[in-house]
Amino acid sequence: MMPITGHTRIFGILADPIHHVKTPEVMNALLCRHGVDGVLVPFHVAPDGLAALVAGLRAQQNFGGFIATVPHKPAMLALCDALEPEAARVGAVNCVRREADGRMIGAMLDGIGFVEGLRAAGHDPRGMRAYVAGAGGAASAVAFALAGAGVAALTIANRTEYKARALCNRIAASYPALPLSTDATDVAGQDLVMNATSLGMREGDALPLDAGALHPGQIVAEAIMQPAMTPLLLAAQTAGCRIQPGLPMLECQISLMARHMGAIR
Amino acid sequence: MMPITGHTRIFGILADPIHHVKTPEVMNALLCRHGVDGVLVPFHVAPDGLAALVAGLRAQQNFGGFIATVPHKPAMLALCDALEPEAARVGAVNCVRREADGRMIGAMLDGIGFVEGLRAAGHDPRGMRAYVAGAGGAASAVAFALAGAGVAALTIANRTEYKARALCNRIAASYPALPLSTDATDVAGQDLVMNATSLGMREGDALPLDAGALHPGQIVAEAIMQPAMTPLLLAAQTAGCRIQPGLPMLECQISLMARHMGAIR
Repeated sequence: MMPITGHTRIFGILADPIHHVKTPEVMNALLCRHGVDGVLVPFHVAPDGLAALVAGLRAQQNFGGFIATVPHKPAMLALCDALEPEAARVGAVNCVRREADGRMIGAMLDGIGFVEGLRAAGHDPRGMRAYVAGAGGAASAVAFALAGAGVAALTIANRTEYKARALCNRIAASYPALPLSTDATDVAGQDLVMNATSLGMREGDALPLDAGALHPGQIVAEAIMQPAMTPLLLAAQTAGCRIQPGLPMLECQISLMARHMGAIR
Repeated sequence: MMPITGHTRIFGILADPIHHVKTPEVMNALLCRHGVDGVLVPFHVAPDGLAALVAGLRAQQNFGGFIATVPHKPAMLALCDALEPEAARVGAVNCVRREADGRMIGAMLDGIGFVEGLRAAGHDPRGMRAYVAGAGGAASAVAFALAGAGVAALTIANRTEYKARALCNRIAASYPALPLSTDATDVAGQDLVMNATSLGMREGDALPLDAGALHPGQIVAEAIMQPAMTPLLLAAQTAGCRIQPGLPMLECQISLMARHMGAIR
């Protein structure tokens, strides 16, 4: 890490809870590699404090921007002054640039970061049958990005099925030719299975999907970064699947986020 | 510096301008020496953004507190939820602790830090005739602390004399036996001369007092930290005075501030 001085620009990550976030280490290493006099620090803020904190950050003139994560991604949509198209389409924001005049510009980079992470690992999702567990901000981002990357079919699986249907309807509006399903039980028929729920973050969490249906030849990806090996990834490994943990995916996303915040070119 | 993770507590320094502040380096070195998982970062905020930023920091649950410096010390008085007695008496706040429930507790440690810095350098102000240039937040803090430390007489010198008189009246209410003056021209008759204005921070600034009247045997102290050697200190050195720059004074204050913010015991 670079030493922090009066010249250092500040960046943040907003989350609740905060202890599990790995972004400070990864982003600060990237800023250091690029010789940027900037530092990213964790901001622990509850949903009912989010608007006040964002209003305060508008007034902080050496603040460059922030990453928004669980549970703030959907709520950030209404707190930005302008949105990049993907954020508006997904209905969630994961990265915000603070302009010099205090305006907040929201982007959604989770999805493209996920797809780039898969490609970097040699798994181009084009033509695959894909299954996404979850229908929240992260799941929406991943689902839109997979649709854009040319998957052959897409299943959105969510405990509350009407939310999965609502997400499918929004995807269908942009990708009318893509076969969509909300059948959460169809795990076996997929090429790519992704957990985009928070299940697996806390000890004792239920599995986000029927891991008994996993089989060799499938790719199982995880959005959760801590623990590095979730119960789903352990089950997938046992079942002979190739796995894609959350932390390497974060590393692929981090330079996209640094660029959006103007920390690097 | 310790690596920044999701567990790291955040502290700040609020200033306008910000580039000159030296507190991040000094405080982060102290936190590191004490093994504290915390980091202090610079927050550049203009006066019209101060209330919004402080409101935002109330919502930041891993925020421990902040140091307030020019021009925010007097304004912080009204933005705190509770004040330590010295802050209420001086009418300014230089350090704020954020309680777990978001309440902001203001303290004024500039004055006692200055006096402790003098004592550490072997200059006990007891019995000295002291001259303070300035009548703002820092000057008030230093003046009250010098009165408390038992100076023999105290001159408050300010371009706008009624502000010096107002400060003298406030000091007289607490120290009725102390001889007080607002005669800015009486530099030669002093043992201790202190600059508590911002003159000397920017190139081309006028001197804060008549440096031609300085002579050997006097101690000349500076509140400004950047540049380390202000034109006043250079003139004092040439005149054969002992000098006390601002940065070593900051180092004496920094552990008082770390304690108030709850960063160290």
